[in-house]
Amino acid sequence: MRAFMDQDFLLTNDTAKRLYHEAAKDMPIIDYHCHLSPMEIASNIKFRNITHLMLGGDHYKWRAMLSWGVDESLIRGDGDDREKFIAYADALSHAIGNPLYHWTHLELKRVFGVDTPLTKDTAGEIFDYTSELLQHDDFSAQALIDKFQVDYLCTTDDPTDDLSFHQAIAAEGKMKARVLPTFRPDKAVSVQKAGFADYIRQLSRIAGIDIQSTADVLHALERRVEYFHACGCRIADHALDTVPYGEPSFKQADKAFRAAMAGEKIKQKHADSYRTVLLAGLGGMYAQRDWAQQYHMNAMRNNSAAMFRRMGPDTGFDSISDAPIAHNLSRLMDLQDAQGQLPRTILYSLNPAANHVIGTMLGNFQQSGIRGKIQMGSAWWFLDQKDGMEEQLRTLANLGVLGTFVGMLTDSRSFISYPRHEYFRRILCNLIGTWVERGEYPADMDFLKQLVQDICYNNAKNYFKI
Amino acid sequence: MRAFMDQDFLLTNDTAKRLYHEAAKDMPIIDYHCHLSPMEIASNIKFRNITHLMLGGDHYKWRAMLSWGVDESLIRGDGDDREKFIAYADALSHAIGNPLYHWTHLELKRVFGVDTPLTKDTAGEIFDYTSELLQHDDFSAQALIDKFQVDYLCTTDDPTDDLSFHQAIAAEGKMKARVLPTFRPDKAVSVQKAGFADYIRQLSRIAGIDIQSTADVLHALERRVEYFHACGCRIADHALDTVPYGEPSFKQADKAFRAAMAGEKIKQKHADSYRTVLLAGLGGMYAQRDWAQQYHMNAMRNNSAAMFRRMGPDTGFDSISDAPIAHNLSRLMDLQDAQGQLPRTILYSLNPAANHVIGTMLGNFQQSGIRGKIQMGSAWWFLDQKDGMEEQLRTLANLGVLGTFVGMLTDSRSFISYPRHEYFRRILCNLIGTWVERGEYPADMDFLKQLVQDICYNNAKNYFKI
Amino acid sequence: MRAFMDQDFLLTNDTAKRLYHEAAKDMPIIDYHCHLSPMEIASNIKFRNITHLMLGGDHYKWRAMLSWGVDESLIRGDGDDREKFIAYADALSHAIGNPLYHWTHLELKRVFGVDTPLTKDTAGEIFDYTSELLQHDDFSAQALIDKFQVDYLCTTDDPTDDLSFHQAIAAEGKMKARVLPTFRPDKAVSVQKAGFADYIRQLSRIAGIDIQSTADVLHALERRVEYFHACGCRIADHALDTVPYGEPSFKQADKAFRAAMAGEKIKQKHADSYRTVLLAGLGGMYAQRDWAQQYHMNAMRNNSAAMFRRMGPDTGFDSISDAPIAHNLSRLMDLQDAQGQLPRTILYSLNPAANHVIGTMLGNFQQSGIRGKIQMGSAWWFLDQKDGMEEQLRTLANLGVLGTFVGMLTDSRSFISYPRHEYFRRILCNLIGTWVERGEYPADMDFLKQLVQDICYNNAKNYFKI
Repeated sequence: MRAFMDQDFLLTNDTAKRLYHEAAKDMPIIDYHCHLSPMEIASNIKFRNITHLMLGGDHYKWRAMLSWGVDESLIRGDGDDREKFIAYADALSHAIGNPLYHWTHLELKRVFGVDTPLTKDTAGEIFDYTSELLQHDDFSAQALIDKFQVDYLCTTDDPTDDLSFHQAIAAEGKMKARVLPTFRPDKAVSVQKAGFADYIRQLSRIAGIDIQSTADVLHALERRVEYFHACGCRIADHALDTVPYGEPSFKQADKAFRAAMAGEKIKQKHADSYRTVLLAGLGGMYAQRDWAQQYHMNAMRNNSAAMFRRMGPDTGFDSISDAPIAHNLSRLMDLQDAQGQLPRTILYSLNPAANHVIGTMLGNFQQSGIRGKIQMGSAWWFLDQKDGMEEQLRTLANLGVLGTFVGMLTDSRSFISYPRHEYFRRILCNLIGTWVERGEYPADMDFLKQLVQDICYNNAKNYFKI
Repeated sequence: MRAFMDQDFLLTNDTAKRLYHEAAKDMPIIDYHCHLSPMEIASNIKFRNITHLMLGGDHYKWRAMLSWGVDESLIRGDGDDREKFIAYADALSHAIGNPLYHWTHLELKRVFGVDTPLTKDTAGEIFDYTSELLQHDDFSAQALIDKFQVDYLCTTDDPTDDLSFHQAIAAEGKMKARVLPTFRPDKAVSVQKAGFADYIRQLSRIAGIDIQSTADVLHALERRVEYFHACGCRIADHALDTVPYGEPSFKQADKAFRAAMAGEKIKQKHADSYRTVLLAGLGGMYAQRDWAQQYHMNAMRNNSAAMFRRMGPDTGFDSISDAPIAHNLSRLMDLQDAQGQLPRTILYSLNPAANHVIGTMLGNFQQSGIRGKIQMGSAWWFLDQKDGMEEQLRTLANLGVLGTFVGMLTDSRSFISYPRHEYFRRILCNLIGTWVERGEYPADMDFLKQLVQDICYNNAKNYFKI
Repeated sequence: MRAFMDQDFLLTNDTAKRLYHEAAKDMPIIDYHCHLSPMEIASNIKFRNITHLMLGGDHYKWRAMLSWGVDESLIRGDGDDREKFIAYADALSHAIGNPLYHWTHLELKRVFGVDTPLTKDTAGEIFDYTSELLQHDDFSAQALIDKFQVDYLCTTDDPTDDLSFHQAIAAEGKMKARVLPTFRPDKAVSVQKAGFADYIRQLSRIAGIDIQSTADVLHALERRVEYFHACGCRIADHALDTVPYGEPSFKQADKAFRAAMAGEKIKQKHADSYRTVLLAGLGGMYAQRDWAQQYHMNAMRNNSAAMFRRMGPDTGFDSISDAPIAHNLSRLMDLQDAQGQLPRTILYSLNPAANHVIGTMLGNFQQSGIRGKIQMGSAWWFLDQKDGMEEQLRTLANLGVLGTFVGMLTDSRSFISYPRHEYFRRILCNLIGTWVERGEYPADMDFLKQLVQDICYNNAKNYFKI
């Protein structure tokens, strides 16, 4: 029996161990997509205790607690922080096989040096010990990030954001990590969502463009793309809970736009046209500036009306959609490609049943001169676990060229989620090591170490032009 | 090489062996969903030979025989019982990797003590030997059930059933197992199916309600829910071959209801409303009585018109649907949840491509105070095999809290299918044991044994309030 | 660590090794579906070098090169052949985990006796060495095929083809392999595709039938079925990128037919009727002549408009569709079955998420007297890799009777793709060997060897009646 989560955790053979310890382990991190708050980074917040740090905003953990039947007061409510942590420990110890189990223990080890398994019996002591540590300055937000050798960290930002926190962080110049914004114009694209008209008016003000049409929306967004670009942004992101494809006509799109601004009912085909025109237009802007774009597909959000009313979005009530995506995604990418306006693109599906659709979609739009122009995104959200990552890696390897992969990101709202990069690297090294040990690939260690380091860091650095 | 199906069958490491032999093996069984005939239990039928017992009503086995090209006379026809068993053995030995291979051998071992591999050469002798045993009283229907330490057994019953056989079994008081009914009102929900109007008239008579509207249907069903409750029923079941969601309006529903009663064409949107109103109304009745409900999704039944005419339903001509379910299921559950009327619910998909949809749907509607209120059902029907069960367990573990799982059921029409619980327990213990041996979970044997016993028995006992 | 791709490649236990070396290895090949050019076989072409042979028409390899960012001149362009091979080697060495890696090395070993791993550093030398060998007569197209013990080879042919090359090959009588045509009437079925009217006029001329209706189309096709039958054809093939089911009415079908011939817009429901009537009518013709039919489903072709214009079809810009198939496929097969006109049918899905749909669809339409009448096709195209084949085998084993499986085909446009049969056989033997070594099936080696040889050769021989 192997020891519990020791230095060779998840590494089942010698080649895997060598690849991880000699090549992957010490590579810095490019966390090219996360949901950290620029404000909290800029203000370099500190955490009153481990509950604040670990459970303060993490809907993954809340969700596990609710599944275990924990009382709401101890999840998102006003219960005692120490009791909350004990309640979390109780839920967690029954969540055998859940990535939270490994994430949490890696966080305890790497952030606090705590090796004790977390149970409801050990939780109190761990709470006390870590809470004391958290009072020290080297446990502030910025210190935590820098502790993990993060070179780049890309937050997720609305086009109307003034990016003042990013500027403040850069101006202060204290962090080793460069904190860059990501352009996420979902609110301008989602013509059918509540709040669209208000958002367009806000965008109009900030961009200094009188927005009366779809073309004006794109014009205003381009102003913001330029602003973001000047602030170091090189990546865009789109939440495509459903993937639209409609007639790419400004005339049709304007029917949706005008109806939305007037608070009238929008025909589905007009909304599809609007979203298609927006996405294609934005893709062109990104392509011209050599940005990369990300499409996050197949999430179904805020499923519980009751909890949405109580808690708002991103509180743990989302799940996986099974709507087909292949046809529309192909058309949407081809629309951009046919105009020479398809930027480097990363495709994420929350539904692993679409892994092979994604893995083969890449090949339709690859391009001479760019290694891995179209990427299959790392296992995302609910799939960010050992089985999910292995399946993503195997699917990509089977259907594409694994050596071009830009690797892992946290997609996290937590300041201590960086061990997920370690988790990914162990899984990657173990998969490659296993192939080699089985005689399925030559044991050329120099080549393999380079391949691993490329996937862990160099590919992302080259791909994102940062 | 390991011996063929010995005491450590499917247990690949020491932790797995200890968990199975020391914790799981001797737990009694709660078979909370099956299709045994209450009449056959009540009359304590005996079996003339192993063909009668094993092949008498088992469409899994018929299907394998037909795939092997066996003549219909030896499958469902009037062929000789001994020849039928030999034909089955021939098909089975070529069905390497099929769960039938393991189920059949476990049945031979546990029911008859036969360890010989079944082949067309050994089948005759096994037929003779077992047929003699079957003449003894300890091989009657009731004796077979009790031999497997079944504590509770829940049959599947129509709301119009008078449950007299359940009452007779209870009154006789000879069985160790408690035989409880399950409320399955499919015929009242399926407004588009042939026979709906006749069924409603029958329900009307039995419930003593003049049914003129959707509200009346619900009223009549509530009478039957009350009756079933008085007879010990605590579980409902719905076959949602497609998952409906329509406007939850009695007015719209009544359009479907009246059209169906008049034999007129029903608009799809009205049928969706009717089914939605029925399911939501029934969910409320279950919630009020602290029942659990089961949704069985994604079956596509009676695909062969020719065989349906010859054989009727449930004869082996069903398959897996790939219609999307996520959106409608979310809406349907939220409709109940928003009214505080969502009962404890178990979600089964026959399509494993929906496993992740289900596994994340759970989290949308979990509730403080109830451990694992929404459950991912055990691998069902075609998925009830080693790969399918492992995938269900892994998916649930990755996406939820495995420690809340209510575990296995047979869903069977056979009196000797209880070794499937053994099969499940071995797979469960092996999975957990493998994690522990790999250093992915601490080797806390007391905790792990408790976890295993909870999943094998205690969780179901608590969940179903029986 | 195992040596790289030695004689026990992919064989992880002793039973697997014995099954492969003693039973599978030396069985001849029936390649019942490929895309080799009958003209190139008949003219017994030779290859100027390994680039011509290996990269000349293989869109799998082109696709990998483009993913690696190789310049178009070195992929499909007019670059130097030696440089092209080096560029391929560079891409390939980064495609760890891709089946191309194993296919290419098996091809180098089995065709040329080259055991050196292919890298950009070894590629030049390998190019030179193999190019010299290719000048010899025993490396001509026919010699390459015969080197691999191919008994039967079925090309893919249009109904209007005169099959003169097949006749020439047979008349010449030099090949050990029998080269048979396959009837693939896609162009007559695809009423909505450009070129339909022209194609019908061509069919009309060649069949000598004045085609004015759907019935006439079927009549003309039957003439060609008769001609193909006389030329030894026993297999049909259909590319069902989407699976149609419409009202099976000639009257409705004719509406689509007439619109298509007149260049008018076709209603979707009329097109569905036309395709349904065609497929059912053709199925009947095949059934009457004891042919087998193949349905290839869920491909999405020519996704890049720009590359389609430059390169044409089948150049590496296809991907996997996720459109549901279960309902329509069930109806389409039942339509044929209910009339007693369903031929032996092989179902392939390019989307592995449909594996369980296919695996259970088989059972709906199996038939007494024919072992495995309905088959789950071998892992196809993008799925033709270790993980994909294992999953296909496991799914089929779990849901059907593996012993009836007709096994592997190349589906290839390359003259040296036969090692894929070796790849399949190793994977098959390893899977069965693993089950046996784990005690999940008795170690009856005589029976298992027979089973393996049946799947490798005998089942196909019996199934296709060739």
